[in-house]
Amino acid sequence: MKSIRFRPQPLQHDTRYIKDMETGFIWHQCSMRTLYADTDRANVVYHANYLRYFEFGRASLLRDANYPYKEIEESGYVYPIIDLAITFFHPLYYDDPMFIHTRPAEIERIKLQFDYIITHGESGIIICKGFTKHCALNNRRTPTAIDAKTRILWQSFPHKIEEKKGTL
Amino acid sequence: MKSIRFRPQPLQHDTRYIKDMETGFIWHQCSMRTLYADTDRANVVYHANYLRYFEFGRASLLRDANYPYKEIEESGYVYPIIDLAITFFHPLYYDDPMFIHTRPAEIERIKLQFDYIITHGESGIIICKGFTKHCALNNRRTPTAIDAKTRILWQSFPHKIEEKKGTL
Amino acid sequence: MKSIRFRPQPLQHDTRYIKDMETGFIWHQCSMRTLYADTDRANVVYHANYLRYFEFGRASLLRDANYPYKEIEESGYVYPIIDLAITFFHPLYYDDPMFIHTRPAEIERIKLQFDYIITHGESGIIICKGFTKHCALNNRRTPTAIDAKTRILWQSFPHKIEEKKGTL
Amino acid sequence: MKSIRFRPQPLQHDTRYIKDMETGFIWHQCSMRTLYADTDRANVVYHANYLRYFEFGRASLLRDANYPYKEIEESGYVYPIIDLAITFFHPLYYDDPMFIHTRPAEIERIKLQFDYIITHGESGIIICKGFTKHCALNNRRTPTAIDAKTRILWQSFPHKIEEKKGTL
Repeated sequence: MKSIRFRPQPLQHDTRYIKDMETGFIWHQCSMRTLYADTDRANVVYHANYLRYFEFGRASLLRDANYPYKEIEESGYVYPIIDLAITFFHPLYYDDPMFIHTRPAEIERIKLQFDYIITHGESGIIICKGFTKHCALNNRRTPTAIDAKTRILWQSFPHKIEEKKGTL
Repeated sequence: MKSIRFRPQPLQHDTRYIKDMETGFIWHQCSMRTLYADTDRANVVYHANYLRYFEFGRASLLRDANYPYKEIEESGYVYPIIDLAITFFHPLYYDDPMFIHTRPAEIERIKLQFDYIITHGESGIIICKGFTKHCALNNRRTPTAIDAKTRILWQSFPHKIEEKKGTL
Repeated sequence: MKSIRFRPQPLQHDTRYIKDMETGFIWHQCSMRTLYADTDRANVVYHANYLRYFEFGRASLLRDANYPYKEIEESGYVYPIIDLAITFFHPLYYDDPMFIHTRPAEIERIKLQFDYIITHGESGIIICKGFTKHCALNNRRTPTAIDAKTRILWQSFPHKIEEKKGTL
Repeated sequence: MKSIRFRPQPLQHDTRYIKDMETGFIWHQCSMRTLYADTDRANVVYHANYLRYFEFGRASLLRDANYPYKEIEESGYVYPIIDLAITFFHPLYYDDPMFIHTRPAEIERIKLQFDYIITHGESGIIICKGFTKHCALNNRRTPTAIDAKTRILWQSFPHKIEEKKGTL
């Protein structure tokens, strides 16, 4: 199957982030291993379980940005997924280590998107890429403008700094 | 592996229930098929997924008793699981049909238990047995006496009628 | 949130299929209910679980077409997912009934696609739409031409007959 | 609800293990956080997901003992679960950190058991305890004597050393 270009290089001063040498983008990076529970009888990870890995990536990024998703909800907002997609290049097998790369992508008035790339933890081969698009809802579950703190998080995510200053 | 004795015979006038000819007990019966999502790389259903089948059995019993669990919660109670166990005799494979047999078992002042037996939908072989024990909690999440309607359901479940009248 | 047009009408002689009066397309239809296991703390079905519903729709369609996926695999082929997407319009809640509509969509030499639309089982409201794209692999796990029987299934699916003869 | 006594104290020279000051037993310890995917509409972790945490504990113990379960299977054995139980004391909520404590318990000729205790990662409160009992199967999926390497692992697990020498 086809693939995409992605050449992650760890940032010297902060190993929670990598720089993609193909695009210059900064991505958050976290890692985990597949469980038996994740596999199916074809011997590989069942496709739906990648959404669990994406959630782990998203949650880790937000925590490392000092704004855990739990606090976002405590402040009166929820960000349910309104759109998602995954493209698979290679399977993950049982007990495989993986890197989950997550990046805040587009942001609109009431919607925002996370992008994901999962690579094999040893070979570095690209397993899949995908995105989840979220809509801000308030306490009454109606669409609303993205909360200020999340918007700041989006703006202050390393790749923005890097783009401006070239220093990260 | 060892096994248990269980000889289900459909009730003539209501196919949602069976009588176990070994014990005389009446059990609720529902059926479903395993999905690819349920299997693991050993080619069989991953053990945790049987708890999902148990939930389906329990929910089906309650619905057929005209007291869906959703209504129980709407009346201000929740019945979280405080104890559970499963004993496995044979695996289920992909696309296998199964019968899930569920029975209201012990009931105390604030606790109640469901028993389960899953059989293969074609061979009738016993796959596993298990139970879930639940504790009644009120709106403030503190243990409380089992609600009246659930208690009635327990008393009116067919096997009680059968035991009294021998007619079901 | 936005929505799509979809006006399913049961086929008189075969309730396993519906006709979408908006497009004229025939869709396979099956139904199930959400479980507690499917929900998350936002009170709704967790997004990844819709892929499980899609699998159920796909498996039901293949079974009703007399070519269960299990047999496809027994014949030496697997059809892993290489691409998927879901767009959500409304959430499903606990114990909600749903209709899962599935349709064989594009077919190429080695790839094929299923489309899905899930509607609420009572209100008929559209919950989500999505697709899964699969690639045919042979026993050595290399891409291969779609097997003859699956190709026939694709061609003989009702909507083709309907398009030619207008009679289904 | 009731509780059990468990007073874990980190081992100075190896933080992957703790000593329970109540019983003197050594337990392996690993940690993770709950995900949104793990919760249900009662706002807590759905009971079946604790089996996933148990698997993570078991896999981590085996890896730290230099005998990853993947290698066990590669050597021609599988250890399916034939019995399991969980007792719940307190719920876990979204984003809660937890410690998973795992210990090799009974071992017979063809069966072995892991015990588990999960505690809250901050308060230390005991969330649940449980066990999984496994049966050794060979390549033909028939019960067989536990493989030599697993048996050695059992014997060399720290708590045995500690019991003999009091030095770990």
